[in-house]
Amino acid sequence: MKVPPGVSPSDFAKAISEFEDAVGKEWVFTSDEDVALYRDPYSPFLGEPDELVASAAVAPDGVDQVQKVVRTANQYKIPIYPVSTGKNLGYGGAAPVYSGSVVLDLKRMNRILEVNEENAYALVEPGVSYFDLYRYIQEKGLKLWVDVPDPGWGSPVGNALDRGGGYLMAHLRNHFDSHCGMEVVLASGEIIRTGMGAMPGSRTWQNYKSGFGPWVDGIFSQSNFGVVTKMGFWLLPEPDAYLSGTVYVPRHADLVPLVKILNYLENTRATNGMPDLGSPLLQIPMISEIAAWMSGDGPPPPDAELSGLLGNSEAGYSPELEAYALRKGVSYWSCKLSFYGPAKANEANWEFAKGKFSAISGARFVDNESYKLPLTPEEHEKVHKPQFGIPSLAMFSIGARSRTNPQPTNGHMWFSPIIPRTGEAIFEANRVFNQAAKEFGLPALAFSLPSCYWERAFIFIFAFPVTRDIETNKKNREAFKKLVERAAEHGWGEYRTAPAYQEAIMSTYSYNHHALLRFHQTLKDAVDPNGILSAGRYGIWPKHLRSQQA
Amino acid sequence: MKVPPGVSPSDFAKAISEFEDAVGKEWVFTSDEDVALYRDPYSPFLGEPDELVASAAVAPDGVDQVQKVVRTANQYKIPIYPVSTGKNLGYGGAAPVYSGSVVLDLKRMNRILEVNEENAYALVEPGVSYFDLYRYIQEKGLKLWVDVPDPGWGSPVGNALDRGGGYLMAHLRNHFDSHCGMEVVLASGEIIRTGMGAMPGSRTWQNYKSGFGPWVDGIFSQSNFGVVTKMGFWLLPEPDAYLSGTVYVPRHADLVPLVKILNYLENTRATNGMPDLGSPLLQIPMISEIAAWMSGDGPPPPDAELSGLLGNSEAGYSPELEAYALRKGVSYWSCKLSFYGPAKANEANWEFAKGKFSAISGARFVDNESYKLPLTPEEHEKVHKPQFGIPSLAMFSIGARSRTNPQPTNGHMWFSPIIPRTGEAIFEANRVFNQAAKEFGLPALAFSLPSCYWERAFIFIFAFPVTRDIETNKKNREAFKKLVERAAEHGWGEYRTAPAYQEAIMSTYSYNHHALLRFHQTLKDAVDPNGILSAGRYGIWPKHLRSQQA
Repeated sequence: MKVPPGVSPSDFAKAISEFEDAVGKEWVFTSDEDVALYRDPYSPFLGEPDELVASAAVAPDGVDQVQKVVRTANQYKIPIYPVSTGKNLGYGGAAPVYSGSVVLDLKRMNRILEVNEENAYALVEPGVSYFDLYRYIQEKGLKLWVDVPDPGWGSPVGNALDRGGGYLMAHLRNHFDSHCGMEVVLASGEIIRTGMGAMPGSRTWQNYKSGFGPWVDGIFSQSNFGVVTKMGFWLLPEPDAYLSGTVYVPRHADLVPLVKILNYLENTRATNGMPDLGSPLLQIPMISEIAAWMSGDGPPPPDAELSGLLGNSEAGYSPELEAYALRKGVSYWSCKLSFYGPAKANEANWEFAKGKFSAISGARFVDNESYKLPLTPEEHEKVHKPQFGIPSLAMFSIGARSRTNPQPTNGHMWFSPIIPRTGEAIFEANRVFNQAAKEFGLPALAFSLPSCYWERAFIFIFAFPVTRDIETNKKNREAFKKLVERAAEHGWGEYRTAPAYQEAIMSTYSYNHHALLRFHQTLKDAVDPNGILSAGRYGIWPKHLRSQQA
Repeated sequence: MKVPPGVSPSDFAKAISEFEDAVGKEWVFTSDEDVALYRDPYSPFLGEPDELVASAAVAPDGVDQVQKVVRTANQYKIPIYPVSTGKNLGYGGAAPVYSGSVVLDLKRMNRILEVNEENAYALVEPGVSYFDLYRYIQEKGLKLWVDVPDPGWGSPVGNALDRGGGYLMAHLRNHFDSHCGMEVVLASGEIIRTGMGAMPGSRTWQNYKSGFGPWVDGIFSQSNFGVVTKMGFWLLPEPDAYLSGTVYVPRHADLVPLVKILNYLENTRATNGMPDLGSPLLQIPMISEIAAWMSGDGPPPPDAELSGLLGNSEAGYSPELEAYALRKGVSYWSCKLSFYGPAKANEANWEFAKGKFSAISGARFVDNESYKLPLTPEEHEKVHKPQFGIPSLAMFSIGARSRTNPQPTNGHMWFSPIIPRTGEAIFEANRVFNQAAKEFGLPALAFSLPSCYWERAFIFIFAFPVTRDIETNKKNREAFKKLVERAAEHGWGEYRTAPAYQEAIMSTYSYNHHALLRFHQTLKDAVDPNGILSAGRYGIWPKHLRSQQA
């Protein structure tokens, strides 16, 4: 049996015995083969001694059991690492940041406690998956949509706490922002309920976010200050209809007004779905189109002339490339808009959008899908499911073998900086990251377009492959950290990352000598004085481990 | 010179001298007449020894001066109470919760640091008012709207930190929710920047809310954990057009489906402005119509038969009253919808809403305003300005003498519980509060309809008058506290209140033996160990004052 660092074997044995009393012997895992299930299958340390691994795992079935486990952990100072459910691929899986921690596996807490149709919310436990919630809603015949990420096996609670995103309307795509109310077991074992939930018998826990007094919910996201055991989420009543249309613009410089007009439309909610930027010329698959691309439904390979021009272009541009595009009538950029709402309002909004984009000389428009909702079974099969609130696993095999990807990777990690929502920022980021790729010996990056999950900022999403080759992984890890630094030099910060890079990224949020990190540490010491919860998560180490990390 | 409680006159003299060194002698106020300006003109303790008053005030002109003042306060353990600008009428004015504190008056920090048109945001200091920001935007000719509360002399920073609301689209009406990024001076005098602002040279501080690691912004709202010195806010690019229409429904019971349909429309964003519930029969002025009502433009008094029926109705209902309504064709309920967006989309959405509401037998529809934006100067004069992002003082004299209010009050305090967004909850709340009014010797309450500031919950807003009569004020204060308790028994909690009631209200958020309040205290002790900042605000007392308050 592995023992967590800093814990004596006899204390650990006592703790394990108390865990067994709390949750039942069959739900405490200490054998190598059981504990191996908590390894990160996409670990960039695969086969290296630095791989982050658990010493044991314990799976409570209710909040009272969580309290008991946490109290025991506090007594024996056992590091524990709560996880919800799903795979968390690319973000570290279930493996603890502090190697040797005991995973607190909340997958058995999978109760859907309430779904309210009139007020369009759900209250769920951490072990509930997007699939669970979707099926529950379908079985009850409720006309509600859940904003789901790719893929759908994850946990709404876990995804929100890690501040993930989805595909529906802007007020729901930010999964932390669209939560409402929490229950949290503190390191002391005590339970708090946040927002209106702090009132016994509250009638509006899932209806009004911030309650009375300081709104504390945010400090439980991307952190290690408590174990969240319940969360409320706002859902979308099924809209009347869905429409999508794409605008194509011909010239390289058109990206600037394209984004400017897009911002106007989205910030006034004249378009309310997630926009999707693309480039027919550069043939850039967007994150939301990767599934199609991988399955071979993506665009065909470029012709020989274009291939040559692409190879000679600097960050996706050369005068020759633009001349080719204009001559061949291949658009440099495209932007797909989505509209949810009454069918006629969708049409009116799309017409309005066309009018605005027509300010760009040569803009062309294509009407795409138009569905009266609910989808028919046939439509259900052909759509990009997350855009209709339907969880899916189409994305799960990203990087796997396919026609367009004959050499599969062993996994991936995400480099995902936030950049301003301007065309200029897209150009600049491509210049900077291409230059960086050359310097750091990475393969030349294709011109990249950002994703539009977040309503006021772009997010660049680069997948770094994880291989079976230790040297390649080492090189990629180093390159990743250098890219983080290079991005920070330009004022671009990551929004989320796997444990392997959390400290490196947090260290770029260094304003005033890392004052924010020190503030996090002050909070940590106050709410978890023994430092038992998720040591190291998002760069927050408890006091007794801080010096050795620094 | 008044001296704060627990501070020696010599220490205070030294502190005042250091304050003068920090901000300049002319910006430290200690004379009775200067300090009196910080009294709450609407204090419910007017003329009583319990009135909350300042001992002195200090007005820094920049964040470095704030740091100096805070450090001095920390050294001599001087209680300080930061305020922004505006009047804060009904919420305690500028008077400190802990009587004798030194007001830290941030009105001079009135710089508009950035307004970005393409990405529709502003970065401002606490002393900037809604008027300031509006004027700046007008002078620069930017096509941006600010979501403003009533009245407009307040501070976007102060209003957001107290979690106030406005009148535009749902994603902007919640002023804390639509902020993005903060700068905070901690009790130690150290500065943190939150969200992406923690990255030096960040390019997305006002574009992406939560940054990396725990999102701490929420704990600085309705609290006393730091002095917020900068905040970013999301603005609304001027929409294409505005449309409003009203649905009228005939019967008492129609309120239930009316609200249900309204919820569907708003939660799918088929209507995106703030809805406004009314009752032509009961002639209930909504908070957003109070200005019109006070200026004499409200509905005429009821006829004699209706007066009698109203008097005999229980919480706005009797079979005779409903029969009268049906016979006379006076609608029981109305709901005004607002639409911002492309003119044709507004029309399509309103048509769609009509279709949905037509499920209620006898529903009638009236088209109201329709404006292509920007407003013409003539339109500008006649609209309810906050619904067009225009700050106004039309509401400032609420309770003042007018044709419909011949006996002005001396001020007011707000009782404002959050209730579920259902028709049933409106009926229940009226029954409960009417019963309570009888029990507590309050005048019979008119049937009340809630306001719709918050997109998923209703808020009841009752104004308690503040008078010049001490006994009446005492009685009203007691009744207020009893109403808070009565509401809590039904699971309804206040969202915000004046210092006089903050502790009473926080004590109703008592789940698990006041675990959330104790968590607030844990945070307070960690981030402000000397307890110098806004002692008592929202029920959070520093350690050294906690026992005497309990």
